[in-house]
Amino acid sequence: MVDPEEFIEEAIVEIREKIGDANAVIGLSGGVDSSVAAALTHEAIGEQLTAVYVDTGLMRKGETEEIEETFAFMDGLRIIHAEDRFLDALSGVTDPEEKRHVIGEQFIREFEREARDADADYLVQGTIYPDRIESEGNIKSHHNVGGLPERVDFEGIVEPVRDLYKDEVREVARELGLEEIISERMPFPGPGLAVRIIGEVTKEKVEVARESCHVVEDELEEYEPWQAFAAVIGKGTGVKGDNRVHGWIVAVRSVESRDGMTARAQELDWETLQRIQSRITGENDNVARVVYDVTHKPPATIEYE
Amino acid sequence: MVDPEEFIEEAIVEIREKIGDANAVIGLSGGVDSSVAAALTHEAIGEQLTAVYVDTGLMRKGETEEIEETFAFMDGLRIIHAEDRFLDALSGVTDPEEKRHVIGEQFIREFEREARDADADYLVQGTIYPDRIESEGNIKSHHNVGGLPERVDFEGIVEPVRDLYKDEVREVARELGLEEIISERMPFPGPGLAVRIIGEVTKEKVEVARESCHVVEDELEEYEPWQAFAAVIGKGTGVKGDNRVHGWIVAVRSVESRDGMTARAQELDWETLQRIQSRITGENDNVARVVYDVTHKPPATIEYE
Repeated sequence: MVDPEEFIEEAIVEIREKIGDANAVIGLSGGVDSSVAAALTHEAIGEQLTAVYVDTGLMRKGETEEIEETFAFMDGLRIIHAEDRFLDALSGVTDPEEKRHVIGEQFIREFEREARDADADYLVQGTIYPDRIESEGNIKSHHNVGGLPERVDFEGIVEPVRDLYKDEVREVARELGLEEIISERMPFPGPGLAVRIIGEVTKEKVEVARESCHVVEDELEEYEPWQAFAAVIGKGTGVKGDNRVHGWIVAVRSVESRDGMTARAQELDWETLQRIQSRITGENDNVARVVYDVTHKPPATIEYE
Repeated sequence: MVDPEEFIEEAIVEIREKIGDANAVIGLSGGVDSSVAAALTHEAIGEQLTAVYVDTGLMRKGETEEIEETFAFMDGLRIIHAEDRFLDALSGVTDPEEKRHVIGEQFIREFEREARDADADYLVQGTIYPDRIESEGNIKSHHNVGGLPERVDFEGIVEPVRDLYKDEVREVARELGLEEIISERMPFPGPGLAVRIIGEVTKEKVEVARESCHVVEDELEEYEPWQAFAAVIGKGTGVKGDNRVHGWIVAVRSVESRDGMTARAQELDWETLQRIQSRITGENDNVARVVYDVTHKPPATIEYE
């Protein structure tokens, strides 16, 4: 485990040396990795940093507001509201790889416009150690702002947390004084709620996924999972009153892990599972059933797509 | 609760009075209701009864063999192997109601050929009391051989167990000496494994559903569920070795109920759930994850479609 204080001092020196008095840009995803990378870079170069947060419409409940508050101290914070453009781009797309590709493309389009405006020579990324391992194994096809370096002509890429594990990043976040909601935040995938929706991404399914994820995070906080979320995985029958209805099936996932490379499905109390299912079916009229994922990684992945 | 011995005596008299020396036909589904109706009618009119069992390819593991053994004493037993015809008819059909309709149509086609061959004036059905209630509420669209009476010109319909609840039918089955595997059998839907498959019914999905249902029935016997089964509900990602794969998601369902009209998801031990998931993912290479349904009826139904 690195010493957070020492790490921060060294990182700031390294970032200053690399970027000098040029401008830099970073994409804030809402997760702890890019938040720490941004805070470190801001410490190092202040207003030379532009931090771009793209609201894709696929974010967690309240996430955009939290980012706005947490990073209010940065003059270079840019919040881009691109919900409709993402939904339009995703219309009719059902293949998981194609979905990630469309989101990645749209993200780059939104981001590169801001990067050019900021006249940035350097791209800062929140890549951490396990990301680099997984990209080599090709397990994930969209990480951070993959593909951007070829499109915008940056002088260099800076990855201040590239050698850290997730728990080390959290230590650094606490040391930097980042809000607890950010430092303790569970990992959230690059393509957002889109990978928590099997099949086409629609506004209705995004709403169900967002509300259900919120219930799961809320109810499972005390279990301290590595990651816990809900996914909209299909449709099945239900009964409301005397009528047979067709409603969404929501899967709940909660896993224990050190680094995300392997994971174990978490044993939950029956009362907790019942509270989750009754909140999700009660608050979402169009949800017919809730299932709990009992599979480890491997053979399953943590996310559904 | 009826007295089984008394019920059997009275039912035999009633059936004899109604059918006289005419011929009758019954569809054996493999479930306890039609098995009891067939056994009662055979007691009453012997060789005047033809019992038709259509193997739709959507049956439980070993079900056809069990029926053949259990009813070997009936001269009028006809086993129809129609697996390929059902799969052909279902090819490309994804809508749940359309699926039930296609299966119902094909079933009638297979059944009416046998009914004509048997020169049957009477149709015997295993309808029980809750079926009649549910048909009125229109909860299920396919029960037993719905639609047949209009197509074949029967003189009358005989429903020997029409006033019984499920637990009473089981009592009668025991009294009749029907094999335990039949008398203690869990309810199984008319359209068979097809309603345990969301989306198109293919040979691959039927195999996964059949093997997974077998694991669930086997592992949950001691819990004495009202009904327990597995359903193939979609596809999600998994990891096998170093590769990302796309595999089936299997949902496990186990409920407690008195009559099927309402039901509660059953609390299972974590060890049991883990044994089920590891057997299903281990024995089926193409399954990536196993989820447990924690929803009651209502708001969910017991079955998935």
